[in-house]
Amino acid sequence: MTDRKFDTTCIGNAIVDVIGKATDDFLAVEGLTKSSMMLIDMERAEDLYSKMEPALEMSGGSAGNTAAGVASLGGKSAYVGKVRDDQLGAIFSHDIKAIGVSFETEKSTSGAATARSLILVTPDAHRTMNTYLGACIEIGPEDIDPDVIAGSKVTYMEGYLWDPEGGKQAFRKAAEISHAAGQQVSLTLSDPFCVDRYRAEFLEFMEHGVDILFANEDEVKSLYETDDFNTALQAVRQDVDIACLTRSEKGSVIVSNSDVYEIAAESDIDVVDTTGAGDLFAAGFLFGYTNGRSLAESGRIGSIAAAEVISHYGARPAENLKDLVERQLSAA
Amino acid sequence: MTDRKFDTTCIGNAIVDVIGKATDDFLAVEGLTKSSMMLIDMERAEDLYSKMEPALEMSGGSAGNTAAGVASLGGKSAYVGKVRDDQLGAIFSHDIKAIGVSFETEKSTSGAATARSLILVTPDAHRTMNTYLGACIEIGPEDIDPDVIAGSKVTYMEGYLWDPEGGKQAFRKAAEISHAAGQQVSLTLSDPFCVDRYRAEFLEFMEHGVDILFANEDEVKSLYETDDFNTALQAVRQDVDIACLTRSEKGSVIVSNSDVYEIAAESDIDVVDTTGAGDLFAAGFLFGYTNGRSLAESGRIGSIAAAEVISHYGARPAENLKDLVERQLSAA
Repeated sequence: MTDRKFDTTCIGNAIVDVIGKATDDFLAVEGLTKSSMMLIDMERAEDLYSKMEPALEMSGGSAGNTAAGVASLGGKSAYVGKVRDDQLGAIFSHDIKAIGVSFETEKSTSGAATARSLILVTPDAHRTMNTYLGACIEIGPEDIDPDVIAGSKVTYMEGYLWDPEGGKQAFRKAAEISHAAGQQVSLTLSDPFCVDRYRAEFLEFMEHGVDILFANEDEVKSLYETDDFNTALQAVRQDVDIACLTRSEKGSVIVSNSDVYEIAAESDIDVVDTTGAGDLFAAGFLFGYTNGRSLAESGRIGSIAAAEVISHYGARPAENLKDLVERQLSAA
Repeated sequence: MTDRKFDTTCIGNAIVDVIGKATDDFLAVEGLTKSSMMLIDMERAEDLYSKMEPALEMSGGSAGNTAAGVASLGGKSAYVGKVRDDQLGAIFSHDIKAIGVSFETEKSTSGAATARSLILVTPDAHRTMNTYLGACIEIGPEDIDPDVIAGSKVTYMEGYLWDPEGGKQAFRKAAEISHAAGQQVSLTLSDPFCVDRYRAEFLEFMEHGVDILFANEDEVKSLYETDDFNTALQAVRQDVDIACLTRSEKGSVIVSNSDVYEIAAESDIDVVDTTGAGDLFAAGFLFGYTNGRSLAESGRIGSIAAAEVISHYGARPAENLKDLVERQLSAA
């Protein structure tokens, strides 16, 4: 019998990334909004893919990347997400287990294929994501194992999970179980357009259901419909216990009701592909937080993990993050 | 109607590479021969994959990499190889077309899945390949389009194509058409163990059927069953018009009946993954050769293309080789 105690259980859309280079002109011609995530149907996915450069495939999915990051840091993580019993599903399943994450969600055996995101990386290293949700729409509350959630210090969920209808239900069920077991619930806002789609629901859910929020600057400003980061920061600290606000090269800010910690971004990073930066920041923070580190230390681990993932293509760590963090923290 | 004239048509096993890191200990425990290619069945593929680190997927296949290289250099190339109508087949098909290669081989609609090679990259950047041939065994002479072969200055085939029975027949048919049209035939020996499997047939075929041979040091020594490179070199120049012999960091030697050219390896390369080095050398040489360059110049282009592909994971060029070669040749 496997151990059912985890630092973090991550719930999200299980996606294989299809990563290719693209020019800004290509984004313009295809009508894509740079640095955002757009949902597309199968027909559009095939059309866009046919126009894409040669690509490489790697497992992704926001919360999947976070679960992989926690495991690479030496933490115990589980993942809940839906793939089909197809070749891309086998790739997703292999990769998340191989890095040490517990992944037991039943694969769907009919219906849509495993989800993929066509990720266009422009020469400035920014990523523009076009996601076909596929089998992700099959997720539902029946995929939530109460023992796993009750045994997880933090249950972390991506805002993107609001897009498939069953995802929202799975999300609410998991949050209830987590809190009933005296554990904590964490949410990432995922994307400014995702915030646009679900602003009222996110705010309502945050009031009672979220202990730790992750958001980047655009997302938190979108949430409170303000152009001013500081206004958003003051608002969010009323709504959640801890907010982790990431600001790319300006570093990050960790806010609790009583404190504000500013964390500098790692310096001297040769940025290749920003995909996964927020996911790995969350992984680093949650690993630190669930292992007794201070908020500031946890934020620093988040910065180190994020810096690693943006230094190469793909949204999962390419080197062992435990060793990397130990080296970086001892060098300080 | 598309143009049916090509610099090079490449025929080979159509494979998606599954690339992961591994230690030398892992190779030993799994009984793998470092730097070789081993054929495995589906059961072994699943077993080995389940033990592999998280991986990335990229289109590969030796001759496929060469066709992609020729296209990236600005040449006109076509590819013949068999995939199934599954997700990996769609990936293979997309990638080779997206780089500019003509690929019209009919996909199989039943039988084995698209081929994959589990490629283990050790810390010294060497690759050890474990290939499940899958749909490749369905290739046959019916996949050879006489117009394409007759319209190709060089038809290039991988020794690996001898493994599926129909591959050998396709190979012989293509060679006959090529020569009947006054064009040239090229063969790569692929792997020393592949040479072991088919030594007599390769030698017999080379006598009448091969104008340009590619081999690395181990392969050509295996072919003539000698430990001495120079002995092999003197033997091979009797058997083919041109032999391109690659020697890793020792550079390469181009041998014709009358001349021997030594080409230095590119210097200052940070070697990450040697997969595709020979394939891209062949691409560079064939691009130069079919576009009127001298043997020595063609070899230099091969070296530049090979140096690019070993500087990153994956066996296909990550940057535009035409631009790279122009920069490197003008810098000389």
